[in-house]
This record gives sequence, C-alpha cells and structure tokens, in this order.
Amino acid sequence: MRMESGLGVVHLFGKASGRLDREAVTAAVKAAEADECQVIAAATLGHKADIEFMALAPDWRTLRTLQSALRDAGVDIVDSYVSITEVSEYAKGMPEHMLNERLYPTLPPEGKPVFCFYPMTKRREATANWYATPYDERNAMMREHGACGRTFAGRVVQLITGSTGLDDWEWGVTLLAHDPANIKGIVYEMRFDKGSALYGEFGLFYVGYLAFVGDVLDGMGR
Amino acid sequence: MRMESGLGVVHLFGKASGRLDREAVTAAVKAAEADECQVIAAATLGHKADIEFMALAPDWRTLRTLQSALRDAGVDIVDSYVSITEVSEYAKGMPEHMLNERLYPTLPPEGKPVFCFYPMTKRREATANWYATPYDERNAMMREHGACGRTFAGRVVQLITGSTGLDDWEWGVTLLAHDPANIKGIVYEMRFDKGSALYGEFGLFYVGYLAFVGDVLDGMGR
Amino acid sequence: MRMESGLGVVHLFGKASGRLDREAVTAAVKAAEADECQVIAAATLGHKADIEFMALAPDWRTLRTLQSALRDAGVDIVDSYVSITEVSEYAKGMPEHMLNERLYPTLPPEGKPVFCFYPMTKRREATANWYATPYDERNAMMREHGACGRTFAGRVVQLITGSTGLDDWEWGVTLLAHDPANIKGIVYEMRFDKGSALYGEFGLFYVGYLAFVGDVLDGMGR
Amino acid sequence: MRMESGLGVVHLFGKASGRLDREAVTAAVKAAEADECQVIAAATLGHKADIEFMALAPDWRTLRTLQSALRDAGVDIVDSYVSITEVSEYAKGMPEHMLNERLYPTLPPEGKPVFCFYPMTKRREATANWYATPYDERNAMMREHGACGRTFAGRVVQLITGSTGLDDWEWGVTLLAHDPANIKGIVYEMRFDKGSALYGEFGLFYVGYLAFVGDVLDGMGR
Amino acid sequence: MRMESGLGVVHLFGKASGRLDREAVTAAVKAAEADECQVIAAATLGHKADIEFMALAPDWRTLRTLQSALRDAGVDIVDSYVSITEVSEYAKGMPEHMLNERLYPTLPPEGKPVFCFYPMTKRREATANWYATPYDERNAMMREHGACGRTFAGRVVQLITGSTGLDDWEWGVTLLAHDPANIKGIVYEMRFDKGSALYGEFGLFYVGYLAFVGDVLDGMGR
Repeated sequence: MRMESGLGVVHLFGKASGRLDREAVTAAVKAAEADECQVIAAATLGHKADIEFMALAPDWRTLRTLQSALRDAGVDIVDSYVSITEVSEYAKGMPEHMLNERLYPTLPPEGKPVFCFYPMTKRREATANWYATPYDERNAMMREHGACGRTFAGRVVQLITGSTGLDDWEWGVTLLAHDPANIKGIVYEMRFDKGSALYGEFGLFYVGYLAFVGDVLDGMGR
Repeated sequence: MRMESGLGVVHLFGKASGRLDREAVTAAVKAAEADECQVIAAATLGHKADIEFMALAPDWRTLRTLQSALRDAGVDIVDSYVSITEVSEYAKGMPEHMLNERLYPTLPPEGKPVFCFYPMTKRREATANWYATPYDERNAMMREHGACGRTFAGRVVQLITGSTGLDDWEWGVTLLAHDPANIKGIVYEMRFDKGSALYGEFGLFYVGYLAFVGDVLDGMGR
Repeated sequence: MRMESGLGVVHLFGKASGRLDREAVTAAVKAAEADECQVIAAATLGHKADIEFMALAPDWRTLRTLQSALRDAGVDIVDSYVSITEVSEYAKGMPEHMLNERLYPTLPPEGKPVFCFYPMTKRREATANWYATPYDERNAMMREHGACGRTFAGRVVQLITGSTGLDDWEWGVTLLAHDPANIKGIVYEMRFDKGSALYGEFGLFYVGYLAFVGDVLDGMGR
Repeated sequence: MRMESGLGVVHLFGKASGRLDREAVTAAVKAAEADECQVIAAATLGHKADIEFMALAPDWRTLRTLQSALRDAGVDIVDSYVSITEVSEYAKGMPEHMLNERLYPTLPPEGKPVFCFYPMTKRREATANWYATPYDERNAMMREHGACGRTFAGRVVQLITGSTGLDDWEWGVTLLAHDPANIKGIVYEMRFDKGSALYGEFGLFYVGYLAFVGDVLDGMGR
Repeated sequence: MRMESGLGVVHLFGKASGRLDREAVTAAVKAAEADECQVIAAATLGHKADIEFMALAPDWRTLRTLQSALRDAGVDIVDSYVSITEVSEYAKGMPEHMLNERLYPTLPPEGKPVFCFYPMTKRREATANWYATPYDERNAMMREHGACGRTFAGRVVQLITGSTGLDDWEWGVTLLAHDPANIKGIVYEMRFDKGSALYGEFGLFYVGYLAFVGDVLDGMGR
C-alpha cells in the first residue's frame, strides 16, 4: 500500500454530524501530518459539503487512517476522490525538478486561497474517442491546453492527479486561485480548447476557500 | 475570497428540520445584510424544497457564514447553486450603466413576486458543439435569444450568473415575473430559439414566490 | 401568484411518516377546497409513494398552503410536479367551451377511478429536434396523436398541463381510466405515433386508484 | 380497479426495518392469498433488497392492501415494479390454453427455485427505433428471440408482463431457473439476438432464490 | 441454488453502523468459511464504503447467510455486486488446469495487497455494438486485451466474473496488485485497446487494501 514513487491523494468532502468533536478533528489532521502526510482544508460553498480535506501521503494506510479518524470525530464523509500524483505521458520530457514537483507537490501555494476541485474523463464517443486518437494529435491538444492554462500563471495553480482504475473519473483537477473569478475564467477559457470542447467530460464541481481546520469548524457546529 | 469585481451568488434551497428556529433564521439573514449582502427569500412549490434564499455579496466568506447560520438555525440545505455575476463576452460593448447593473444588480424588482431558478449548460455534442462554434455564430444566436427575451419586458426580469468551474452547470438563470404563466411563456418561447433548441441543456427547475423570511417560515413549521 | 387565466396545478406524492395525523390531513384538504381549490386523492401502487394528491387552484399560495399543511400533518412529500393548465398552440382554434374545459377542468370524471401520472418532454436531438421542426409538421403529428387518443374515448380521460420553466419536464400528463388495462393500452398505442416514437421522452410513471382521503389513509398508518 | 381480463402484478423489494414483525408479514401474505392473490417470496442477494414478493391478483386493491400490510409489518419497500399480465401483439395467434397461461399464470413452476427480475424497454433511438419499425420486422425479431429462449426450456421459465404507462419501463421480466448459471446463460445468449442487441434497454437486475416467507425472514432479523 | 459448476460470487461493500459488533463480524466470516466459502476483506478508501468483503461459494444460500449475518453484526451493506465464476467463450480452448483456475480460483494471491473492483459492460451503440459484432472480431479484440494484461503479469492478478442477468453490468473485474500505481497503470493502458476504447463501459471503482477482518474493523469503530 506504500507507493514506490509519487503520492496517494484523497479529497474528502464532509458535513458536520451532530456529534462533531472539534479537537478530535484537529488531532486527526495532526496525526496524519506526523505520518508523512500533507493536509489542506477548505470551507466549501453550497449544499454538497461543509468542509474539504485534501491529503497526500506515500502510503494508503495513512490516508485511510485519516479518513477513519475524521469520521470518528463526527465528520460525515459525503463525497470523496481517490487519485495518485503522476507525470502524464505528455510531460515525460520535462526537466527533473518539474517532474518532481508533480510527483511530490508542496501545498498550498502562497496567496491563492480560493479552492476548486472537479474530476474529469476523456470521451470515448463515436465522433470523439480520445483513446482511439493517435498520440501526436492528443499531444498537440494537450499542448494547446497547457498554453491556455499558462495565461493564468500567477493567478491560478493547478494540480492534475491520475485516477484511472482508482475512482469513477480518469483525473482529478485541483485549482487554487487568487480570486473566485479566476476559477471561472480559466475553466471557461479552456472549454474552448479542442481537447476540452470535443473530448472533455466533467463531474461535480466543489468550490470554497482554504482555512485552518479550526476556523472552518467554527462555521460547522450545530 | 473577496472579489475584485462583481458579486458572488449562492442560491440555497432548504427544508425545515425538526429543530427550526425562526428567530435564528431571521437573524442570519439580517447579519448577512449588515455585511454587504443582498438576500431574497421565496416560498417554493413541490417536494424539492420549502424555501429558497438567493444571496449576493462581494466576499465568499459572507455567503459561507450565511449558509452555516441558516443550517445552524434548523434549515436543511438540500440543494444549492454557486455562481458569480458577470458581463458575458457577448455583452462587452454595452453602455457602462448596463454593465454595472449586471455586475451589481439590485433585487428584487418591483411587482414581480413569482420566482424561478434553473441552471443551464451549452451542449458539446457531435452535431451541436457550442464551444467549437465560431464566435460570430454564437453571437448571432445570443442576439436572437436576447430579442425573444425582450418581448417579455415588463413581465419578466432575468438575471444570468456565470458558474463555469464553480458549479455543475455553466450558468444560473434567475427569473422574476408578474404571473406564473409568464415563466412558462418565456421559457417555452425561448426553447424554439436556435441557441436553445440545438445547444441548451437544462437542470432542475425551482419555482415559488417571494415573501418576507418570517412569512415563508410560517408555512414551514412542524 | 394569482393567475390571470387558468389554474396552477401541483401533483404531490406522499408517504406516511410515523407522525401521521389523519384528521389534520383531511382538514388540510378541506381548507384548500374552501379556498377555490379542487383536490383529488389516489392510493398509489409500489415503493415510490403511498398517496397522491392532485390540486388545482388559481393562486399558488393556496397550493403552497396545502403542501405545507399536508407535511405538517405527517405526509412526507417525496415527489411532486408543478404545472399550469393551458391551451396548447395546436388547440387554439377550438370552440370556446372546449378551451374553457382545458383551462378550468372539473375533476374527477365519473366512472374512471384508475389514476396515472407521468411527465414528458419533446426531444431536442440531432436527428429528432422538436423545437427545430416547422409548426406544420408538429401540428400534423399532434393531430395524429389526438386521433389515437380519441379511440380511447369513454375509457380514458386525459389532462395535459404545461410545465416548461416550472418543473423538470415540459408537460404533465394525468390519465383517469375505467380499467388498469386502458392505461397500458393508450400509452402503448400512442408510443407508435410519430410524435411519441421519435420525439417523446418520458419521466417516472405513478399509478393507483382514486379514493376518499380518509380511505386512502386507512391503508397508510404505521 | 378490478381488471376485466388478466391480472395485476406487483414486484415488491423490501428490507427489514428495526420494527420487523414476522407474524404480521406472514399474516399479510395469507390475507392476500385469501383474496384471489398468488404470492411468491424470494431471498435476494446483494445490497438492493433482502426479500422480494411477487403478487398477482385481479384487483389492484388487493395488491395495495398487501403492500400496506407488509410495510405496516416492518418491511421497508425500497423498490417495486407494477405491471399486468398480457398477451403481446406478437402472440395473438396462439392456442387458447397458451393465451390463458399468459393471462393467468400459476406460480411457481416446480424445481426452479432461482429467481431473477429485471425491467426492459425497447429503444427509440435515431438508428434503432423499435416503435418506428414495421410490424413484420418486429415480429421476425420477436420470433428469433422466442426461439433462443426455447433452447432453455426445462431449465428456465420466463414470464413477461406489460407495464407501458404503468411503470418506468415497458415490460417486466421474471425468470425462474434450476441453477444460477441458467439465468446468466439465457440473458447472455439472448443479448446477441437482433431484438436485444439493437433495441433492448435493461433496468436493475434482482436475483435470489424462492423460499417460504418465514424462512426468508429468519435471515432478515436485526 | 447450488451451482453444478463454478462458484457464486458476491462483493459486499459496507459501512460501520453505530451498532457494529466486531466479534459478530468475525464470526460471520468464520461461519461462511466453514461452509465451503472463501472470503477476503479489504479496507477501502473514500466515502463509498469502509470495508469490502468478496465471498465465493458453490451455493447462493451460503452467500446470503453471510450477507445477513454481516448486516446483523452492524455492517450496513451499501453497495454490492453479484456474479459467478466463468470460462468465457473466448477462453474455451485453454488447458484444463487454467479453466479450473477460473472456475475455482484461490484468493488472495501472495504479495498483492492492493484491491480494486469495478463492473463493466460492452456497449450496444449505433457505431459500436459488441453484440452485433462477428465472433472473430470480438475474439481478436479479446486477445489484444489479454496481451496487454499480460504485460502486467507479476504485478497485477485479475479475476473476471460473469454477471449478465445477475447484476446491473455484464462482468465484475477484481484486481489485486503490488502497488497502487499498478492498478492505474493496467486500467489506463487497457483503455487504449480497441475492445475498451470503443466498446467498454465502466461502473463505479472501489479501491483499498487487503487486511484481516479484525484489523479493518479497528479503523471502522465510532
């Protein structure tokens, strides 16, 4: 369950149950951090969840222990996403330090408190089948996509993690931004890229803002 | 979490739980209003919800605080929609005061107590892919759509807010009308517009009528 | 919220909660009837609901008050449909008294205790887009459909109410019949009409039989 | 609510609630049987349900009374299917006694304790629209389908009941077999028939094995 | 309910209820094992489940008894999959001992603690209808698929069980691997095979790691 390379990632979306124990939640996060795990927490908007925990660790047992401890502390886990960090086949030629940033990212980036997560899959339809498209065409679309993303450099940081075989979509996308409008901006602009317009399929979107666990919980009590 | 321009918007759809505290609900709305937030409330018809709150504020923290306070007051938030006010790319040339009305709307309009909300997305299908359609064609369809909407001027006010990347559909549509038949009228007529007939995809529809928070709650108790 | 013409309609599908108060349910229906509202009740078959209330009134507040009172009386509203009576664009030339029957129907018809409700929408697909089809073609299909329906005259009464913009489908179909086999008969036969075969999309079906509210409740208690 | 010809059918899928009353369940079934109703019960595998009741009676009131009594006895009805026995349009020429077996089947057949139920619908798609296909073509496909089914004679008994207009799919399929592998065998083989491969759309599958009500309940308690 | 050949299989996905009885869970598994049943347990990641039990036995009654006993011990069964071991039509010519391994597998393999399960179906679409494709073409695609799978030999063991007619998809896929990255690797690579790219349709994915029942339960308590 320990990965030889890269990190396991879980996004856990929770609601406060009537038996929420704030100290136990904080203790659960601290215990994970003491076990090689990075954890960031966000207050989320809307009915889907009250709080989001994103955790990255080399061993799935660490992630599972965090999940169990949060639940035991009174956080009902109502949605989640399981993925692993990856270097995509289109990024293989990158310099060593950039590959390393993808496999072992350091979160959160500074000055980007707005949080967004959504999963995505590439279509396999009669007229737009990503997996029946030659590598060179896929690679060209990925490069156009990357160029569009780079116009948001400084305003949005994105982390794409792989989940084919691990969860119900093929990738998880985590965005961290300066202003809520940046999130809408980058996702809207990218939707016109050929790779998204023709091949992208998107799951549920979660948005909110980063906060210390204790502060998020203050707005969660009953 | 504070927007540099425009307003954050949440539509919160709620049901009364057994622990509903009317005074706390009213206090939650008042606290939001004291923090630069506009809030309108509607009694809704059907099983999906009992009450709807639409809130607009420049800072997401204000919206999240309102959401938490409503829940703490015994309103179960069963559905929601997160968006931001926007000037669409097809409206860029409008006079300054009209752009301002879109970014900073004042709600509710007078004499239009019938409320409707639904989210929508433009299709990306093999034979009708909005995001692979040239700007000029999209612009022409948006203008036809706008002209159809204007035939309902005086009877229906509509506010379109953007949610690409923020929620599961690309736009939220809020309609306020004089008579329930106006809601059916405008949505039915617009469905024949090329932009809707070929490219529109619609989510769940919520309808009801505006009321003071206290009055809506009177019909919500157990 | 009061309609200038026609009636607002809600179909409310309920299950008995543990706190069902039979007298309060009957009182809720009586109060609505005293406020210009027609109400018919049906015992329904299957897990989706135990009881159905169909209510028609000129003012949405009457319908919302009934809904709240039923819930307060211990009926969990688990599904619903919101629509308004209408004269469709294909029926505009009908004699005055027939138009009036559609806008102000009197329910239930005699000797037709079998109840059926389902919502429907016309497709907007690449090869069958109702809203991109010329009026004359649509009108011809509606006439074929009407002729098929008339072969069930005397055995089935149908009421089509409009819900574009008001609920998640475009029309609600209420059927009242003499024998359960008539319901299957008319819906099966009509499915071969061009308008249904190519353009019809159907939601959940609810069936049961009309009964006095008190009698339906007798089978609902825990 | 009493059918002039044929029988009403409900499949009720239940889970044991904390208030399960075994004697009341048995009494509910006995009362139905005393009212012209056949009832067979099955223990089901998997999370969807613990127990299945299939009931056939000429009057819907008998079926609704059984449903209410089971719920009152502590069986939560979590899924269901409503249909009626029928002689399909492709079987009209059959000998009288065979038609009669379809309208008034006697259940269960001997030596076939393995139970399966699933609903199905014929597709109405651009390239495969059953309801826009000429009768002769449909009839030929139904005959191929019947021939395939007959190769399982002695191992599988099937009962097809009609539900267009009565429930969310057009037919309910009940299979009773000698060995679980027979169920997989017949459904897998038939999927290659033109009528299924091109036109069949299938709902949820329920499987289990027949048992006396009391025996099924022994495995249901909490 | 006893199979003449092969084994019945259930995957049961559970969450700990407030009334979890650890000893009763262990006893339920032991009782099944004493009745010709193999059981493997896994701790699962994410909100869908806390624990997974995969059980294989020649008699469905053994599987049903296990399911009931687990529920009675306080494990809420929230999802499941019913299938049977099979020798597919593309594997008929294999040597006797290999056929036997498919009908009577021995689980778990050594050194492969990472667990994954997902169900799948072959598409029946206008342009990609598996069941209307000639046997030779299907066979060729299955062989390409098998060759891709064999490149993961030593890192991933897969067991495909048949469920046409038994559950909502046509096959269940159980993967056991050395490292989480192997699961993503094999499923991602295979998605480019013609048989998957054009014809594969996948359900929910569950992942976790094998553990003794007692150890899994330690992280499940409330």
